[in-house]
Amino acid sequence: MENSELRRDPITGRWAIILMDEKIDFDKLLSSKSHRERSNEVKACQFCEGREDQTPSEIFALRHPNTEPNAPGWQVRVIPNKRPVLQIRGDIDNRAVGIYDVLNGIGAHELLIEHPQHFVNIPDFPLEQMKGVLSTMQNRIVELKKDPRFRYIIVHKNYGEASGTTLEHAYSHIIALPVTPGRVKNELMAAKEYYSFKQRCIFCDVVRQELEQKERIVAEDGNFLAFTPFASRRPFEVWMLPEKHETFFEQNSNQGALASMLITVMGKIRQMLKNPDYIITLHSGPNINVSRRRGYWKTLKSDFHWHLEVVPLLRSYTSFELGSGFPINSVPPEIAARVLREETVTQLLRRMKV
Amino acid sequence: MENSELRRDPITGRWAIILMDEKIDFDKLLSSKSHRERSNEVKACQFCEGREDQTPSEIFALRHPNTEPNAPGWQVRVIPNKRPVLQIRGDIDNRAVGIYDVLNGIGAHELLIEHPQHFVNIPDFPLEQMKGVLSTMQNRIVELKKDPRFRYIIVHKNYGEASGTTLEHAYSHIIALPVTPGRVKNELMAAKEYYSFKQRCIFCDVVRQELEQKERIVAEDGNFLAFTPFASRRPFEVWMLPEKHETFFEQNSNQGALASMLITVMGKIRQMLKNPDYIITLHSGPNINVSRRRGYWKTLKSDFHWHLEVVPLLRSYTSFELGSGFPINSVPPEIAARVLREETVTQLLRRMKV
Repeated sequence: MENSELRRDPITGRWAIILMDEKIDFDKLLSSKSHRERSNEVKACQFCEGREDQTPSEIFALRHPNTEPNAPGWQVRVIPNKRPVLQIRGDIDNRAVGIYDVLNGIGAHELLIEHPQHFVNIPDFPLEQMKGVLSTMQNRIVELKKDPRFRYIIVHKNYGEASGTTLEHAYSHIIALPVTPGRVKNELMAAKEYYSFKQRCIFCDVVRQELEQKERIVAEDGNFLAFTPFASRRPFEVWMLPEKHETFFEQNSNQGALASMLITVMGKIRQMLKNPDYIITLHSGPNINVSRRRGYWKTLKSDFHWHLEVVPLLRSYTSFELGSGFPINSVPPEIAARVLREETVTQLLRRMKV
Repeated sequence: MENSELRRDPITGRWAIILMDEKIDFDKLLSSKSHRERSNEVKACQFCEGREDQTPSEIFALRHPNTEPNAPGWQVRVIPNKRPVLQIRGDIDNRAVGIYDVLNGIGAHELLIEHPQHFVNIPDFPLEQMKGVLSTMQNRIVELKKDPRFRYIIVHKNYGEASGTTLEHAYSHIIALPVTPGRVKNELMAAKEYYSFKQRCIFCDVVRQELEQKERIVAEDGNFLAFTPFASRRPFEVWMLPEKHETFFEQNSNQGALASMLITVMGKIRQMLKNPDYIITLHSGPNINVSRRRGYWKTLKSDFHWHLEVVPLLRSYTSFELGSGFPINSVPPEIAARVLREETVTQLLRRMKV
C-alpha cells in the first residue's frame, strides 16, 4: 500500500496525487524510452550553418558584422515554419455558429534555431549563446505583439522524440495566436482572482514561501529562483522565475543571470536524469495592448508573474491523468529538488539510506 | 499551407485548432501504433471467470442465483485495486503548509470487471451485459457517495496499451476522491457561470443545436445523443449524453437505450477506425450531499448535465498541446461524424471524392 498525499496547486487550484514513498525506483524511472541512445554522428541538417538556402528566408538573426542574411555567420536565427498550422495572412473574422464561436486559423508559427551547430544543446551553450537565444525570444515577442490580431505569444522548446520532435538540432517554437491557450488562461484568471482577494501576486507569495522553506529549491541566486512546484504534475518538473515581480518575459533585463541559471539547471537535469527528453514552456503576460477586453486585464501588471516550466518526460501521461486532469506523480518534489542539487544520485541515495 | 479554424469549446472556453483540409490521410491516421495486432490467444488472466481466488475479495457482483461470492457464476464483478494510489482507511486531515493545501491520500480505487470472459469487449456485449455494467457503475457511485470523505467519483475505462493498460480483459476504474479533478471542476464551474447568466443548462443548449444542425451527429434515438464536439480535441472524439436534462449519471433510468447506443457507437469506432485503443470517461455531478461548500452547488441540479467522453487514441498528444492546453486536431468533427455514420471509409471517400 502506497503512502500518498493530495496536493493543491495554489495557482490554478489543480490537485495532484504525490506518492510519498521514499523508496523511489530511480532505475526504472531513468530507464524509460526517453533515454534512447543519442547519436553522435553529425548529420548535417537544414538548421545547420551553411544550409541557409534550404530553409525559408530568415525573419531575424543575430549575426557577425559583415555577414549577409540567409548566409553563414549567424549566432541565432529565426525562420517561418514550413508547415504552419496557422496562416499569417488574413482576417480573424470572429463569428458565431449558433452558441459556438469560431475564428479563422490566423497566427504566426516561427522556429528559433538556437545554435549554428548540430549537436549543441542548452547545457553546452556558452553564456553569450544562451543570452542571444533569450534576447531573440524577447525581440520576437515584442515584434509579434505589434500585430493587433495576436493576443498571445507561446514560446515552447521540445527536446527529444518523447517531446514530439524528430529534429536533433536545438530549436524552439514561437507561436502567435489570436486567442489565449487554455492552460495559460486558467493561470491568468486564477492569478487575477487571488490578487483581487489578497492584493498580492500569488507567484510572489510562492517565491517567498519557497525561499523560506528551502525544501524545493533547485537553484537560487538572488535574481532568479528554480524550484520543484509543491503540486508537481511530473517527476522532476522545475519552474524558474524572477524573484522580484515582473509580468512580461520581454521586460526582463537580467538575461545574464537567467541564461546562467538555465544552463546550470538543464545541465543538472541532463546529468542526474540521464539526458531525458523534455519540454520548456514560457508562461508570460498576454498582449494587453490590443486585447479586445482590455479592461479585463486592468490588474494584470500587478497580478501575473512570468515563469518558465521545465518538464522532463520520464514517462507518458496515463489516460487517467489525461481524462481527469488529475496527475499522479511518483517523485515528491522535495526529493526531486534534492536530486537536482546533489552531485550524483549515488551520493543522494547514500545520504537517504535507501 | 493548411486551412484551419480556431474553435472554442462553449463549455470550458478552451480553444482548439481544427485543420479543415478535406484531404485527410486516413491511411496514416489509422496506421498508428495504437492498432497493433490484437492477440486471439486466450490467455487466462486473474479477471477471468474461475480465477476469483487470484483477486482481492469482491466488493459487489451481479451473480446468477445460487452462486457464492468469489466463485464462478457472475456477470459483472467489482474488486479493490491491488495497488491503489489512494488508501481507503484514514482521515483526510485537510491542512495548510503556508499558502499550500494538502490532504492525506485517502480514496477508493475499485476495478469493475465487465465480462466473465477474456476477449469480449463493448461492441460484442449482449444488451443485457452492457446494462449490467452500467447499473453496476450506478450502484458503486451511489454506495461511494455515502462516504462523507468522497467529493467526486471518477469512472474511467481504458482499452489498449496506448490508454495505459497492459490488461486485455475488459474492465473500468471506479475512483473515489476527496477533491474534484481539474477537468471536471473546470466544466462544473463553467456550467454554473453559464447558468447564472442565461438560466439555461449549457449542455441542453449544445444538444438543441446539434439536433438542429445535424452535422456532428453520430447516433440519436430520442433518448440519447452521440456527437462529435464542435471543438473536438482529438480525431473522432465522441460525447454521449441524455437529450433531456439530467445532472447525475446514477439517476438515469433508461439504461437499455444507453447500453444499446454505447454498443453501436463503440462498434462503429472499432469497425471504421481499425479497432483503435481508446478511453471513456464519465463526467457526472459531484457528491453534493457532503460537500464542504454545499452552497456553492446550489444551482448544480439545473446547470450540470452528465455525459460520457469517448476518445480514440489514434495519435499521442504533442508536447505543444500538453504544454499549452491548445489541442490541434487534424480531423474536423463534421468529417469524423460522417465517417462514424457511414458503412465503410471507402463509401465515404467515394462520396467525398477525395
